[in-house]
Amino acid sequence: MPKSLTGVGVSSGVGYGPSLRLTRSVPEPPPGDRRTRDADSETGVAVRAMEDTAADLTERGDLAGGPAKEVLAAQALMARDPSLADDVRRRVADGTSAARAVFESFAMYREMLLGAGEYMAARVADLDDVRDRAVARLLGVPVPGVPESDTPFVLLAQDLAPADTALLDPARVLAFVTREGGPTSHTAILARSLGLPAVVSCADSDTIADGTMLLVDGATGAVTPEPAASDVDAARAAAAARADAAARTTGPGATKDGHPVPLLANIGGPKDLPAALENGAEGVGLYRTEFLFLDRADAPGHEEQVAAYRAVLEAFPGRKVVVRTLDSGADKPLAFLPPPGEEPNPALGERGLRMMRRFPEVQDAQLAALAQAERDTDADLHVMAPMVTDPEDADYFAAAAADAGIRTAGIMIEVPAAALRARHLAESAAFFSIGTNDLTQYACAADREVGGLGRFQDPWQPGVLDLVAATADASGAAGRSCGVCGEAAADPVMACVLVGLGIDTLSMGATALPMVRAALARVTRAQCQAAAAAARAARGPSDAVAAARGALPGLAELGL
Amino acid sequence: MPKSLTGVGVSSGVGYGPSLRLTRSVPEPPPGDRRTRDADSETGVAVRAMEDTAADLTERGDLAGGPAKEVLAAQALMARDPSLADDVRRRVADGTSAARAVFESFAMYREMLLGAGEYMAARVADLDDVRDRAVARLLGVPVPGVPESDTPFVLLAQDLAPADTALLDPARVLAFVTREGGPTSHTAILARSLGLPAVVSCADSDTIADGTMLLVDGATGAVTPEPAASDVDAARAAAAARADAAARTTGPGATKDGHPVPLLANIGGPKDLPAALENGAEGVGLYRTEFLFLDRADAPGHEEQVAAYRAVLEAFPGRKVVVRTLDSGADKPLAFLPPPGEEPNPALGERGLRMMRRFPEVQDAQLAALAQAERDTDADLHVMAPMVTDPEDADYFAAAAADAGIRTAGIMIEVPAAALRARHLAESAAFFSIGTNDLTQYACAADREVGGLGRFQDPWQPGVLDLVAATADASGAAGRSCGVCGEAAADPVMACVLVGLGIDTLSMGATALPMVRAALARVTRAQCQAAAAAARAARGPSDAVAAARGALPGLAELGL
Repeated sequence: MPKSLTGVGVSSGVGYGPSLRLTRSVPEPPPGDRRTRDADSETGVAVRAMEDTAADLTERGDLAGGPAKEVLAAQALMARDPSLADDVRRRVADGTSAARAVFESFAMYREMLLGAGEYMAARVADLDDVRDRAVARLLGVPVPGVPESDTPFVLLAQDLAPADTALLDPARVLAFVTREGGPTSHTAILARSLGLPAVVSCADSDTIADGTMLLVDGATGAVTPEPAASDVDAARAAAAARADAAARTTGPGATKDGHPVPLLANIGGPKDLPAALENGAEGVGLYRTEFLFLDRADAPGHEEQVAAYRAVLEAFPGRKVVVRTLDSGADKPLAFLPPPGEEPNPALGERGLRMMRRFPEVQDAQLAALAQAERDTDADLHVMAPMVTDPEDADYFAAAAADAGIRTAGIMIEVPAAALRARHLAESAAFFSIGTNDLTQYACAADREVGGLGRFQDPWQPGVLDLVAATADASGAAGRSCGVCGEAAADPVMACVLVGLGIDTLSMGATALPMVRAALARVTRAQCQAAAAAARAARGPSDAVAAARGALPGLAELGL
Repeated sequence: MPKSLTGVGVSSGVGYGPSLRLTRSVPEPPPGDRRTRDADSETGVAVRAMEDTAADLTERGDLAGGPAKEVLAAQALMARDPSLADDVRRRVADGTSAARAVFESFAMYREMLLGAGEYMAARVADLDDVRDRAVARLLGVPVPGVPESDTPFVLLAQDLAPADTALLDPARVLAFVTREGGPTSHTAILARSLGLPAVVSCADSDTIADGTMLLVDGATGAVTPEPAASDVDAARAAAAARADAAARTTGPGATKDGHPVPLLANIGGPKDLPAALENGAEGVGLYRTEFLFLDRADAPGHEEQVAAYRAVLEAFPGRKVVVRTLDSGADKPLAFLPPPGEEPNPALGERGLRMMRRFPEVQDAQLAALAQAERDTDADLHVMAPMVTDPEDADYFAAAAADAGIRTAGIMIEVPAAALRARHLAESAAFFSIGTNDLTQYACAADREVGGLGRFQDPWQPGVLDLVAATADASGAAGRSCGVCGEAAADPVMACVLVGLGIDTLSMGATALPMVRAALARVTRAQCQAAAAAARAARGPSDAVAAARGALPGLAELGL
């Protein structure tokens, strides 16, 4: 039995229970495997397995909705490909077993795709998943995915992808432990949004046998196999004490010495309002409007948009509500806003404001609806554009927003060049909001979606802190407000560092608000500044966290 | 007739001649188009067109070599796909004409790919190109690509891709003019390497009719349709005077007041040595070693590597030769170094040192061969790793190089976080070399290969200059040397700014050396520093160029 393993804790809380591993591998049916039934029956079995796989994928997609639906629908299309079925039929007619025939037909399909160059890697992984699902059915082995279990479990995986978790029942999961991924990985974001403990980058987690009892501490990053009962009790008591301390801190966000730090909520639509209000959000720091535009052939109409914006503005009378205009492209493609051509790297392509500049009618309609919603309510509407890169972009957006009648128009800072030139951007932008996830991705040139680059996907990378500092400095000098609405704001230690760097407001998923509020209440502004300086003096992310913690003694009582 | 158009001049020189446009569109055979021959003959015609297309693509690939070969071979595979041929056969049997049947079969194939999600965009463009080639043959219209012409011409295009130019005969091209692209686009790089005048981002160039006489000035970015003979003479005389002035400046690179700036060559293998020596390179600033590794199933052996490195070291006895270790991944995938899994954005994935850290045996073998070549010769070997992101990476590479017996090991600076944290990287790296192309791509989050983002792909973006300055400052403080080996070094005005920012050496394609040498000889170091400060104070790239030019009066006599 390995002793306690350590990874990076990315969502606090304690989970304890038996481990279950996300299944990914399905055995290859042996070459030369012959059918024992007649050709027609065997073909029927093969075709049914492919059809069942397609139906299952479609159903999972319909249940999941959102981007997962698209991925799963495309996979279902592969399983239903008529030339694939023809090929299987031919192989079965020649005597091959259904499982082997399906395997070989997919291999041919795969070959064809692979031959088409580097961009096919992603596609091939989707295809392999379809093959594994169909072959698993024919061999009678478990279909890849989160295993079935009646009792709650700790989910172990290499890394979790949206498709893996689309149908996950959070009530049955006690914690996540992954071998790869960083603080901005899908695993981390999902765990925080579900309030589940999670440890990522846990190098030896693949040595843990299924069914091992695991104690997972999402605050410290410790993963202990077969712990003593006293260890479980101690960890749970510490977590409860922390949660309790957090819950006792109420009111507006502020440091111990009274420096106000408004704590706002990130929301993806009106459905997220109850959690935001329950957790004491002082407003909305990031209202992602994509939900209005996904899964439809055209942009939503004026009235529909006004209603969706008004619903949020009405929930925060007199308070700040920051709405981000449509951020399509990259990992959020929309049918009616196609990219201009091939994009070998969509994250470096036409997305956010770049896309809106090609489809100004979509942006103008959104701005008009926002202006209408502002007139109808009395919240303090702020509107901002994503993926602003240079002053020309900022000028363009400020002019478009003013034309539409928006009073306060600002920009996201998520491109390194924008952070470095914030002083010029502040000439037309009324406020900044830093998206630390994308800023980290670009600053470290490391895709947020790739598991193996966890070290670089960490906002604690001192180079990322430099960019946050540059933005906050320029914003302060220009008398603008500068918030952070990326995942970094949800990390209580980082939240203190951000305040120390000069950030004015913090916005996060609602469940993270109480702990951040509690952390700020236990440190002074000067301590935050010392923590920020210490973190920036560090050589790497783990040194930076340790140095910051050292300057923030008050966090110890929260176990941070 | 439009009057003079303006774009961004990216390769100086003057070209004058009739315009020819890169053909991309092939008409769609009308729906319901029926065959007039019997089914067998018509099928034969269709199959032959696909086979001829495949053969043509393969031949073009073989002639072109390099990465173009792979792309074209994959396309040939599509044209030869047996299920596609089956589908064509079925449609022709049903009475459809060969051209329409081919068109429809490709449409089905396309549908299947498109249904598979966002990553297919690139693949679909390749497929459409194959379809257009096959359909063009069947309709008897020109095959897409650079048009045939017996007389030299000015090539007009939306943007040039490697496949477009793989077989271009430089002797027949007078200049390039593209509507999209920036200073680091394929068009710009190719033009400079061929010594051809080029203007990119020329917004109205698509209004120019084929056969219009065009005067293209690659220094000023002016494109004049139907110019007066006197204009052509004046432009040519100015260009000749510039070239003449450049040629008269010889000896080692230095500013007018004697500050030495060693001018080095970027080379892709021993084949580039004659041009480097001819243009007075004082050494090699970037020896790309990928050529040794491309198009083969395994890494090259020790002796083969030693010979390739020795050939270059022997050409520069006693001089600096900077060798970059294998930079695979992203746009340069290698068969024996596969990425770890799906990479939706390869440029943000496992490439350069990241890949080498997963295959240390490949890196160690290369370092051992380099150490051997160093012992065998008396050049001043410098070895550097690409895509270093943080101090941990730099420490790792320094240790690996020292273990192999390399005396001087440094790193490329091409990731924004690395530029910002250069002071920590300098603790283990003996020198820096800034790759401005990738640094610009990441700093502005804009793919180098995407035509529509030209404004962001410009090293004149002041945010990029900030990163260069940060690196040079840290390097100077640590007593390290810092070079630039990206495309920016080849721009004579930018070269002066780089010197002003504190860059010690400049490395570029050999043909750019004389003009950069001539530019430096006409300005003082203090002027360079003033130009750098002026450029950094600018809001955007065009302001930055103008501000820098204003501080460098000596460049006027070179027409810069």
